[in-house]
Amino acid sequence: MVTMNLKLLTIVAEAVLEDRIVRDLRAAGVTGHTVTSAHGSGSRGVRAGSVGGGNVRIETVLRPALADQFLEVLAERYFPHYAVIAWTSDVSVLRGGKFA
Amino acid sequence: MVTMNLKLLTIVAEAVLEDRIVRDLRAAGVTGHTVTSAHGSGSRGVRAGSVGGGNVRIETVLRPALADQFLEVLAERYFPHYAVIAWTSDVSVLRGGKFA
Amino acid sequence: MVTMNLKLLTIVAEAVLEDRIVRDLRAAGVTGHTVTSAHGSGSRGVRAGSVGGGNVRIETVLRPALADQFLEVLAERYFPHYAVIAWTSDVSVLRGGKFA
Repeated sequence: MVTMNLKLLTIVAEAVLEDRIVRDLRAAGVTGHTVTSAHGSGSRGVRAGSVGGGNVRIETVLRPALADQFLEVLAERYFPHYAVIAWTSDVSVLRGGKFA
Repeated sequence: MVTMNLKLLTIVAEAVLEDRIVRDLRAAGVTGHTVTSAHGSGSRGVRAGSVGGGNVRIETVLRPALADQFLEVLAERYFPHYAVIAWTSDVSVLRGGKFA
Repeated sequence: MVTMNLKLLTIVAEAVLEDRIVRDLRAAGVTGHTVTSAHGSGSRGVRAGSVGGGNVRIETVLRPALADQFLEVLAERYFPHYAVIAWTSDVSVLRGGKFA
């Protein structure tokens, strides 16, 4: 069985940002993602998204270099304005060749 | 405090496959799992499950050998036919003795 | 880009426990968390929460020492009475300074 060592990038943001973040992922070359609805609070207090609309948890598996690159995109475009948090972790992926 | 080093296996699939995958997990000896509803797109374009029914994100914590073994099951039974993706990561688990 | 090596703590519990666990997280100094609704079964059979109310999956990113400390809290206050499971994993976090 062939597995590849890739990165799992998880982004938690207000639900209204989902389309925009997914568009940015596509533009960066990321071809797959998974979204779950969430709620919660962040270090700025209750996230704006918690009142009306909630949060989304966006996950995508990608090459380490692209994960770092997309963290920069998030840091530039979202962090100054929105309660977005993001983290990466090491994953072993089956059928790794299909990931960006 | 006793923690055990185990594997977290995450499987994203069309929602219609949930029962079948959970049955396969049980048959492999996995005694616990967590399911969240999801949507998203994969490298084959929008996942079939995104239109009507959505996706599921199935998680389970298990011994490394069993994680590898179940990845093989997924590769054989699901990957040729369905837009299933799966990855494993290292986790430290409290009350580890209860996991398969 | 500055990333910090932190721990992702994931807790799966009956939905009725959400407020109590979040209160305990706050009391331990954890300032942010994300909750998704879930269902599933555990090693004690179908989780009580699966029938009416479901489960929650609570995630939070925190310093390693605090992650260990909170696992102890869970082990003491919840494990003897509830079908709670919890695990930690290594994550690289952007804007790490905001985490407890």
